[in-house]
Amino acid sequence: MDNKPYVIGLDLGGTNSVFGIVDADANVIASTSIRTTGQNDIQVYIDNCCKALEPLIEKVGGIDNVKSMGIGAPNGNYYTGNIELAPNLPWKGIVPFSKLFQDRLGIPVVLTNDANAAAIGEMTFGVAKGMKNFIMLTLGTGVGSGIVVNGELVYGCDGFAGELGHVIVDRSADARLCGCGRKGCLEAYCSATGVARTAREFLTKRTEDSELRDIPLEEITSKDVSIAAEHGDQIAKDIYKFTGELLGRSCANFTAFCSPEAYVFFGGLTKAGHLIMDPIKEAYDANVQDIFKGKAKFLISQMDDAQAAVLGAAALAWKI
Amino acid sequence: MDNKPYVIGLDLGGTNSVFGIVDADANVIASTSIRTTGQNDIQVYIDNCCKALEPLIEKVGGIDNVKSMGIGAPNGNYYTGNIELAPNLPWKGIVPFSKLFQDRLGIPVVLTNDANAAAIGEMTFGVAKGMKNFIMLTLGTGVGSGIVVNGELVYGCDGFAGELGHVIVDRSADARLCGCGRKGCLEAYCSATGVARTAREFLTKRTEDSELRDIPLEEITSKDVSIAAEHGDQIAKDIYKFTGELLGRSCANFTAFCSPEAYVFFGGLTKAGHLIMDPIKEAYDANVQDIFKGKAKFLISQMDDAQAAVLGAAALAWKI
Repeated sequence: MDNKPYVIGLDLGGTNSVFGIVDADANVIASTSIRTTGQNDIQVYIDNCCKALEPLIEKVGGIDNVKSMGIGAPNGNYYTGNIELAPNLPWKGIVPFSKLFQDRLGIPVVLTNDANAAAIGEMTFGVAKGMKNFIMLTLGTGVGSGIVVNGELVYGCDGFAGELGHVIVDRSADARLCGCGRKGCLEAYCSATGVARTAREFLTKRTEDSELRDIPLEEITSKDVSIAAEHGDQIAKDIYKFTGELLGRSCANFTAFCSPEAYVFFGGLTKAGHLIMDPIKEAYDANVQDIFKGKAKFLISQMDDAQAAVLGAAALAWKI
Repeated sequence: MDNKPYVIGLDLGGTNSVFGIVDADANVIASTSIRTTGQNDIQVYIDNCCKALEPLIEKVGGIDNVKSMGIGAPNGNYYTGNIELAPNLPWKGIVPFSKLFQDRLGIPVVLTNDANAAAIGEMTFGVAKGMKNFIMLTLGTGVGSGIVVNGELVYGCDGFAGELGHVIVDRSADARLCGCGRKGCLEAYCSATGVARTAREFLTKRTEDSELRDIPLEEITSKDVSIAAEHGDQIAKDIYKFTGELLGRSCANFTAFCSPEAYVFFGGLTKAGHLIMDPIKEAYDANVQDIFKGKAKFLISQMDDAQAAVLGAAALAWKI
């Protein structure tokens, strides 16, 4: 019973639900996905998931070969197995998500939020393998984080710890409004949407030429900024410098908390490579307390974008 | 062997080294102290400590009744047992402090910094008993912190984690210089010396009457501010409001990290009671992310000032 060779990983996104059957070496043996959007009835959604999973489970010799299931989900609570008040999912209120799958599949099911799943993925299969203390920062539509201390994820008293995207980093009167309703959160500056906002600000305030001026202001994305920066566009490079500086000095504060061995970055913004990583490291060194200088590594996740979230969820399942 | 009924606690301060023999119920059975100041030869200092300890150890029936020794020391490193580059102690460089006592006493010796020892004391004997996730903030000459996550102290990759006094909270051009050499650290505002600086600033900038004006500006201490505030002095009350607000909004950021069940405050500044605790709680509620609202408790340590540090060190010894 202890040697079941596979787990199921589920990356639950607002648009799609992606499933993978994964072995202990991070090989995705089989995968499938269904739409999340529009699935307003949770029971019908679970039915559809199980139907989609059936051929995958058969492919690995039936459910008896599957140890457990791990789920990475927005607003997923590790302690309760519930998804709570997730703004981007079709179900309102508190959904006992783990329990619904557990009752249907008859295997243990564990759930956490997507950034925590990513951190467990890195610790199990990725660049943080063997590390006992590190911070994962996911720079996507939002800024997510998973914090590992003494080899364990930090969940806090309520299961919601590790929300570094919502540390307030700007307390000035004109700090940006964040999606959480407060002002000046890291996420309002260092997410993909934050970078697009910075682009609009810089292009409005400054007068130099920039290839970004060929794009209607309201349509600029962080990807456009990345492409322009690769071409050597000065405004685009300055946008990354601004973003990286804010991240670097924020990390210097995070280090006072848990002195991590490494910061692991994942997500669209990391595609800018040294254009964002250099200012992160420079601002970190300039801001961190002397006793911590030169200790933390700054790493970019090497996980395949398409598989990382499923592998994170699978890694969580392996830890049951 | 496992039932030895006593431990030794050592609170190593810049001025005095205070020893206590402590049982498992936090009773200090015997105590003594020697001067730390002027003890420039570490070997002579250890000799003097052991001589002072001898009658205490005899009182409890000899060293065979003593399980272990715990030490709370500035810049104490839990991983190595060393004291590293402590500015307020007579020994320069890196001192293998635990080992020196271990070799002499023949019992296990463990060491950590003073704020971490305080946190372990609260978790073992104090208001945080039974808590798995809390943050201890010591508001004394400096601002120290001990962070407990999943029931364990956070030491980080190097043993120096938990330096919340050196989180940068003010990035404005006129942010205060901190003793660590950087600008804008929490400690520069919310320590006893920070409060005295705030008093000097407020008294210089403002024109109202205040009983603090009877004291030469450079001689005002946080204790003077506390006494004036108790008398209803408006400037003194505003100084605590300013200090509490800064602490409260900083705690709101710390919660994004580890969502603690409680913040436990210890040290001179807590003597101001609701004058400081009320603005802490108000600023916390106004700044913390919605999902965390109303969860964390704000507690003042109930430990006796004179014994708290020794009990913290003893609690560490019990955990070996």
